Amino acid sequence: MEITFLGTSSGVPTRARNVSSVALRLPQKAEVWLFDCGEGTQHQLLRSEIKSSQIRRIFVTHMHGDHIFGLMGAIASSGLAGNAQKIDVYGPAGLAEYLQACAKYSYMRLGSRLRVHTVQPGLVYEEAEFSVHCQLLKHRVPAYGYRVIEKDRPGRFDIEKAQALNIPPGPIYGKLKQGATVTLENGRIINGKELCGEPEIGRKVVYCTDTVFCDAAVDLAHDADVLIHEATFAHQDAEMAFERLHSTSTMAAQVALLAGVKQLIMTHFSPRYAPGNNLQLSDLKQEARAIFPNTKLAYDFFAYQVPRRR
Amino acid sequence: MEITFLGTSSGVPTRARNVSSVALRLPQKAEVWLFDCGEGTQHQLLRSEIKSSQIRRIFVTHMHGDHIFGLMGAIASSGLAGNAQKIDVYGPAGLAEYLQACAKYSYMRLGSRLRVHTVQPGLVYEEAEFSVHCQLLKHRVPAYGYRVIEKDRPGRFDIEKAQALNIPPGPIYGKLKQGATVTLENGRIINGKELCGEPEIGRKVVYCTDTVFCDAAVDLAHDADVLIHEATFAHQDAEMAFERLHSTSTMAAQVALLAGVKQLIMTHFSPRYAPGNNLQLSDLKQEARAIFPNTKLAYDFFAYQVPRRR
Ligand SMILES: [Zn+2]
Ligand SMILES: [Zn+2]
Repeated sequence: MEITFLGTSSGVPTRARNVSSVALRLPQKAEVWLFDCGEGTQHQLLRSEIKSSQIRRIFVTHMHGDHIFGLMGAIASSGLAGNAQKIDVYGPAGLAEYLQACAKYSYMRLGSRLRVHTVQPGLVYEEAEFSVHCQLLKHRVPAYGYRVIEKDRPGRFDIEKAQALNIPPGPIYGKLKQGATVTLENGRIINGKELCGEPEIGRKVVYCTDTVFCDAAVDLAHDADVLIHEATFAHQDAEMAFERLHSTSTMAAQVALLAGVKQLIMTHFSPRYAPGNNLQLSDLKQEARAIFPNTKLAYDFFAYQVPRRR
Repeated sequence: MEITFLGTSSGVPTRARNVSSVALRLPQKAEVWLFDCGEGTQHQLLRSEIKSSQIRRIFVTHMHGDHIFGLMGAIASSGLAGNAQKIDVYGPAGLAEYLQACAKYSYMRLGSRLRVHTVQPGLVYEEAEFSVHCQLLKHRVPAYGYRVIEKDRPGRFDIEKAQALNIPPGPIYGKLKQGATVTLENGRIINGKELCGEPEIGRKVVYCTDTVFCDAAVDLAHDADVLIHEATFAHQDAEMAFERLHSTSTMAAQVALLAGVKQLIMTHFSPRYAPGNNLQLSDLKQEARAIFPNTKLAYDFFAYQVPRRR
């Protein structure tokens, strides 16, 4: 699982940071999921290792322009490069109508390549190896945080040990590999777990933006391996954060602390903290680390490999 | 009058070229007019000498995504930087509805800052020093070419010569400055032209995209100082040009030749001619120059000062 930040500025792009988008590359898949897709996301992909044709799913947090104005371009380009795969887009009410209106007025046929799903708090998507859940955060418009769960995998099955126990071949092996307990025809009871190595614990990546501090973010981020949380403002600008329903660095750190996450990565920084200004992003980092030491600042094209738990 | 190319690729951005937008800076004004506004135009402005807050008018040729998907972002950013001036946007039917839909679903209030004008062939806009006309070109969807006319200015008025002629002060000077002939109270006839220097001939800039070769482009470009014309394809790919209603390099050159323009600048190049490919943009330039020698290739951030006629 590799996270690549494609845009880490809030509201408007700067010369160094584009508006919001995060790419998640899934293990053993040539598939990429995007979280938000601000204007210029396809341009950022051109400058990264990720091809727009690899985009398979896009999760949209909310309908502010800096999170959605790159959707049409990215969808169009993903269909031009290589053999066009389907794209599923998930997001709040209004997303489907927005995409339909853009397609209509720009004479673009989205056709059957694109499916748009309006999300509700709870399960958003599930497949054999992953599931995605969302929660409503606290912003000026409905905004959802997303939690991607990599499912646990049973440990390696010790086939030689099973054969040594004279377990007859057949579907029984499938059950034992899942760690189930089975009774052989001769009455012997075998615990599959004893034939399996340590199970591989799945990883959890949580993406919370845009939001002021809220309990829903803490819930969503519980025990996550990585929490990506917005930190639009520095602590001393908390008044603006409460007014505009964005987070300060210290709010992001408090969510990380209360949720017991392994790693916090802050993003969605106001351009007011660009180099040369009075307060800078290094200040936001210090403020957060005073509360939650395991904090990183995202920057455009920063790639983070989510480590496996052992 | 300075033209700055902000995007010179067709359809999709490449690492070197963004999708369509051209900025026109007007003399003696801090005002910039844009022609088309593909995704990432506001990002290109960040890398240019032009501030998005200077945008006063945007002329849209047609509703394909590579010409309009940057409108919302550019409009939003132009209103954030500095004191927000009004923006007038001109373009085909559907443009107003597109902008309204984008604003609605992204919770953006366009308010009274933005006025959208649906154009018809003919006069689009007029003020004291400039006028803008458009013509319907030949593309898959309604596409307009634009002609910007700088009005001629009367030559410098020789006030000392007028005083030497004992012309009494008063409104009569205003008429003479315009080159009119007036009769004084004492019956003397004075030709204002004899008191004025050479008039300053206004410049004409014409923008034709997207289109296959058409007579309307030749009409629109008549006697222009600069013709910016699309050249999506090389001459040997003319079949694709006719199919998709785009131009080849040779079509652009023929328009320039028939219209008797001073300078042709080609833009909107297919990414298929990027460096390393079989045919390259230097081939398109040669093809065009064989027909119209005064041809340049646009590139991103190319700035061209339109010379004054003497
Ligand atoms: Zn935002
Ligand atoms: Zn085009």
